[in-house]
Amino acid sequence: MESNIKDYERIIIGIDPGTNVMGYGLLGISGRKPKMIAMGVIQLNKLESHYMRLRRIYERVLGLVEQYLPDEMAIEAPFFGKNVQSMLKLGRAQGVAMAAALSRDVPITEYEPRKIKMAITGNGGASKEQVQEMLRRILDIPKENLLPQLDATDALAAALCHYYELQRPTIRKGTSSWKEFIAKNPERVK
Amino acid sequence: MESNIKDYERIIIGIDPGTNVMGYGLLGISGRKPKMIAMGVIQLNKLESHYMRLRRIYERVLGLVEQYLPDEMAIEAPFFGKNVQSMLKLGRAQGVAMAAALSRDVPITEYEPRKIKMAITGNGGASKEQVQEMLRRILDIPKENLLPQLDATDALAAALCHYYELQRPTIRKGTSSWKEFIAKNPERVK
Repeated sequence: MESNIKDYERIIIGIDPGTNVMGYGLLGISGRKPKMIAMGVIQLNKLESHYMRLRRIYERVLGLVEQYLPDEMAIEAPFFGKNVQSMLKLGRAQGVAMAAALSRDVPITEYEPRKIKMAITGNGGASKEQVQEMLRRILDIPKENLLPQLDATDALAAALCHYYELQRPTIRKGTSSWKEFIAKNPERVK
Repeated sequence: MESNIKDYERIIIGIDPGTNVMGYGLLGISGRKPKMIAMGVIQLNKLESHYMRLRRIYERVLGLVEQYLPDEMAIEAPFFGKNVQSMLKLGRAQGVAMAAALSRDVPITEYEPRKIKMAITGNGGASKEQVQEMLRRILDIPKENLLPQLDATDALAAALCHYYELQRPTIRKGTSSWKEFIAKNPERVK
């Protein structure tokens, strides 16, 4: 699943952070054609301590950033969760992944899950399986290279969603989607 | 407010993370006597982008870790917040600060605000001003060295609370206070 990073004009790392499993996907762009460079998952549920998990995320994301030298990071970031406890933990997982990118000057853009699904499948309510199947077709991924964990394709989908956004003529690079979200949805922010 | 880090057998960095202002305090232990080495605040509210803030936190905490080579980090971490939005943002701020410590192998322990106040003043509901005044007396801090921002003394209080915990004979190093919290308060976790 590996290829030479020099083959690509632009590389985007997609991250789907979770506190049990974190997915990642690397997308390479060559001649306006996106291609999957690598994808995988970081297993966290076997690590007992919360800090061990955060450390694993940080080290693994930093390792990927150093290995593939991505130009940008796209992160799947739900804005709403079940409760404050789970959101605090998710925020920490996102924070350490972001720190790895920020420490190497990799700009970050975040996308709501719904937006990613819409960009890939045309349906904001698509299942993870549908996202995976669409990605497989768009990026021409051999079936044997797909992983059983859908977190990997979710992460790759975030990277592809970001690539599509970059293609849109109106995109302003470095825009915080967080800020946009708040601007567009003031009533949803207490 | 600076002194030579070689004067101390152990150095604890205390962090009070926030999304507008982050406080930090460095406590040095020499002959079982705690002393303030440095304290300050990281102003974040002038930085417009959420990512710029996270980056500032990461870089500043990493800078402090590299400058003072602390043996441990104590972090003030509320377990409950107003809403999921603010908890996600707080989690990210905590996450990048933790990443700076984890990247340099500095173990982290977190303390609830109430526990820190109790450890310093004997009253879990003490005001920030009362915490500052107690700290000033315990650590013999000259009045002119106190900062108007109480986030700095809050962070130093977290470090002192951690030192007191380490003095307790039953302490198990590396215990996750998160895990302890959940074990002790199962009804508060949804």
